[in-house]
Amino acid sequence: MGVKIDIFDSTLRDGAQARGINFSLSDKMHMLALLDDLGVDYIEAGNPASNPKERKFFEEANKTELKHAKLVAFGSTRRKNTPVEEDAGVKALMDAGTGAVAVFGKAWDLHALEVIGTTLEENLNMIYDTLLYLKQSGREVIFDAEHFFDGYKANPDYALKVLKTAARAGADTIVLCDTNGGTMPHELEEAVKASLNAVDVKLGIHAHNDTELAVANSIIAVRLGVRHVQGTLLGYGERSGNARLSSIIPNLQLKMGYECIGDNISKLYALAREAAEITNLPFDETLPYVGRNAFAHKGGMHIDGLCKAKGSFEHIEPSLVGNSREFLLSEVAGRTAMAEKLKDVFPEVAADKEKVGRLVDKLKMLESEGYSFEGAESSFRLFVMKELGLRKPKFSLVHFKVNDEPSYAETFGVHAVVKVDVNGETRMAAAEGNGPVNALDKALREALGAFFPELKQVTLTDYRVRVLNSEAATAARVRVVIESSDGREFWRTMGVSSDVIEASLYALIDSIDHVLLK
Amino acid sequence: MGVKIDIFDSTLRDGAQARGINFSLSDKMHMLALLDDLGVDYIEAGNPASNPKERKFFEEANKTELKHAKLVAFGSTRRKNTPVEEDAGVKALMDAGTGAVAVFGKAWDLHALEVIGTTLEENLNMIYDTLLYLKQSGREVIFDAEHFFDGYKANPDYALKVLKTAARAGADTIVLCDTNGGTMPHELEEAVKASLNAVDVKLGIHAHNDTELAVANSIIAVRLGVRHVQGTLLGYGERSGNARLSSIIPNLQLKMGYECIGDNISKLYALAREAAEITNLPFDETLPYVGRNAFAHKGGMHIDGLCKAKGSFEHIEPSLVGNSREFLLSEVAGRTAMAEKLKDVFPEVAADKEKVGRLVDKLKMLESEGYSFEGAESSFRLFVMKELGLRKPKFSLVHFKVNDEPSYAETFGVHAVVKVDVNGETRMAAAEGNGPVNALDKALREALGAFFPELKQVTLTDYRVRVLNSEAATAARVRVVIESSDGREFWRTMGVSSDVIEASLYALIDSIDHVLLK
Repeated sequence: MGVKIDIFDSTLRDGAQARGINFSLSDKMHMLALLDDLGVDYIEAGNPASNPKERKFFEEANKTELKHAKLVAFGSTRRKNTPVEEDAGVKALMDAGTGAVAVFGKAWDLHALEVIGTTLEENLNMIYDTLLYLKQSGREVIFDAEHFFDGYKANPDYALKVLKTAARAGADTIVLCDTNGGTMPHELEEAVKASLNAVDVKLGIHAHNDTELAVANSIIAVRLGVRHVQGTLLGYGERSGNARLSSIIPNLQLKMGYECIGDNISKLYALAREAAEITNLPFDETLPYVGRNAFAHKGGMHIDGLCKAKGSFEHIEPSLVGNSREFLLSEVAGRTAMAEKLKDVFPEVAADKEKVGRLVDKLKMLESEGYSFEGAESSFRLFVMKELGLRKPKFSLVHFKVNDEPSYAETFGVHAVVKVDVNGETRMAAAEGNGPVNALDKALREALGAFFPELKQVTLTDYRVRVLNSEAATAARVRVVIESSDGREFWRTMGVSSDVIEASLYALIDSIDHVLLK
Repeated sequence: MGVKIDIFDSTLRDGAQARGINFSLSDKMHMLALLDDLGVDYIEAGNPASNPKERKFFEEANKTELKHAKLVAFGSTRRKNTPVEEDAGVKALMDAGTGAVAVFGKAWDLHALEVIGTTLEENLNMIYDTLLYLKQSGREVIFDAEHFFDGYKANPDYALKVLKTAARAGADTIVLCDTNGGTMPHELEEAVKASLNAVDVKLGIHAHNDTELAVANSIIAVRLGVRHVQGTLLGYGERSGNARLSSIIPNLQLKMGYECIGDNISKLYALAREAAEITNLPFDETLPYVGRNAFAHKGGMHIDGLCKAKGSFEHIEPSLVGNSREFLLSEVAGRTAMAEKLKDVFPEVAADKEKVGRLVDKLKMLESEGYSFEGAESSFRLFVMKELGLRKPKFSLVHFKVNDEPSYAETFGVHAVVKVDVNGETRMAAAEGNGPVNALDKALREALGAFFPELKQVTLTDYRVRVLNSEAATAARVRVVIESSDGREFWRTMGVSSDVIEASLYALIDSIDHVLLK
């Protein structure tokens, strides 16, 4: 086994600085479980000093048992001219109650002087006092030397003095940060070598992607002797983002012989997608290793070459990261993946080549229309049942109508009317709601509840809308994914339509069928 | 002035291998002009042997006068056991009539033996004969040593023999290709050094992004002595794409002192966007240098730091590449960010501490309700105007009604009715749509278009829905952001509601007000 490299994920902290990301408390809990499942070593989950929502999160998170990862709270060194015991930020960091903390301090003289507005000496004291205090309080301390590389360029002696101060205070890991993301690989090499000579503490790297070099700089640093890598799973972060762990981990583990997350690497493809679902940002399918296009071949010569000699046009075997090869112009793609997917639920179908082939063809057609069953496992199962003639509907929707207009009284607004048919017996129901989908959901369960009391236990626990081809503006197709629960089990279903209400309706019907067809 | 590096763009050839890209003839002509305007040295525009559309394109392109760039046709070495004068591919390459040609040949023994199915000796002959023939026909010859880095790993002697053969035949430039994109920087360094020692011809680099190292590998090669860089402007290409020139050019020119495209670099931001428009793929706003987010700051400490010391949180001055700085307003941002944002549009308000304070308070209240003006600059401006009593509505919406139910005929489904009031004069309009929002948008612009003809130029160009607190399932609040354009300018507006239709309506009204309140 290769040399172990610590993997430190900051999706919940630095990743949340990305434009368009706003994590709710439940998003954060979901991401925490996902990252732990992936096998990262540290999960930096927020700055407890920034707002009450963050403090509430740490309370919840501390109750969760993690399989492997250590939960990390993030904060700053004490303020200038303030005793560390009286510093509100340090206190919040302690109160977060995590076993490990990440603390940032300034390693660039310009920042100490002009941004903080203090002396170079006091800046070192701020670092020393804070780290010592946290160490003495029993914390594992990771020190982020902010702007280290810019600082090293401007004043190498001072930048190294910052590292030495952190080492003297007992930091367990000292992280060299390229906060502005502008460092070229040859500049980075020089500074990393000097740092390795300066201190005898485990060093880390924290790179940003402003010059598209975050992955390269991270792995170059590891090759020089750095043993801790910070990044965000999908590269989310301020500006052009943080170093992307979904590229760094396979580079280090599959290409360079280091040890990062062990066998969990085969979950990378699936978990990367699930992480994107949590943020509700579109997944970039061109991403190395985890994008759908990463092993998709279009050029005829490439496809021909691959059929003649495996590896001739591929840098790794795609399944190592849970991905799969795809030939964009051929019909042979997808069967292996489909058989794989069917194995658990319909083993006899998985073995039937002809049936698998038909399912792949149908799935391709649906995908070209914007369907995607990823993250909607129940709808996938219902799709297979339908194609195989096994989906015998327990009810049909005779008619629905949603009406949305400003109301005369405050108490009557959006409402829905539905009519269902169960074995020839029809039933109508109407309900109001906060919006059209909510109204429709309530009316549908009201009407069906009379026939199927088990539906009364069901509640919707999550609802997501994704616009598929957003260039077409309001006429774009949308995909709705809902999560439902009966209190014991959770299941997710999906609907696609150009009409968000209709798409939601399909997802609701699948959710109900999930219960009724068991 | 620094050492000149040739910039070779292959958007029209390798870029066209990307999933989702299909260039029409006019797209190609447009891209050609754009790349020439950017000042690249070579534009590789297609393989004339592949189909008649390509040949037609070269006929057209040869008629165009380029300001600076050289047009390049791409092709293969002759087939095995075929005299070069009789080879159809080589003939097509000649017939393309370009002054420069790029020819690829195999540099990996595995490919010569198993993919082409020939001897190692004949593979060298194929390269030698083809390049010599093209040189003798007066062409500038660029030789792409395909799979050079994998070939060097497998059989370094043979890979270098390929380079020497190309040099002996008179190639003007020999390009080291990382065709599979799996080469790590330290492996690349070794192979590039060996190549520089082996031949005395200008060397080039052609990298792919399968390990997210294409930009790094390109600039590392240049630093070792390579003087020609191939890539695609926006990184489009098969699988995870080609080396992204929009990152490489500024890295080389602004950070490392090389000369690439001179003063044209200030056009990079605008031309990158135009190039994405031609391909009709969504622009990735997180891209280094050219993304809208590349200089967008969200963290309060970053914003505060930038105001105190320019460059403290930015690796270059954004205007160097035609981009600009942006402060995102978020729950963590404060007065500094607000004052900064107001400076351009409402300078007198920015200076008024009390007004800035009131705006921040109001903003925080709205944000706690789920509003986020991030990415909706026009709604932000309208919010400020409203708070300052400057937003005098030009119209009011008297009533709207959206009706969504399955239709009796296929031709009538979702429809909306609106009634507007403009200075006491009312007008109704109705429209059908693909969904409720599309219907509402059309009805609203129909009704108002009679009063404000300028609205007829406006189209929606993007539409996004974000569910805010998805734990509340279908009763959750949603935020809708739409982007509109009048063909010259783009603006983004936002609406929040528990009803997706109402949220969309607010965003539509803001978009219309953006036009009317100018």
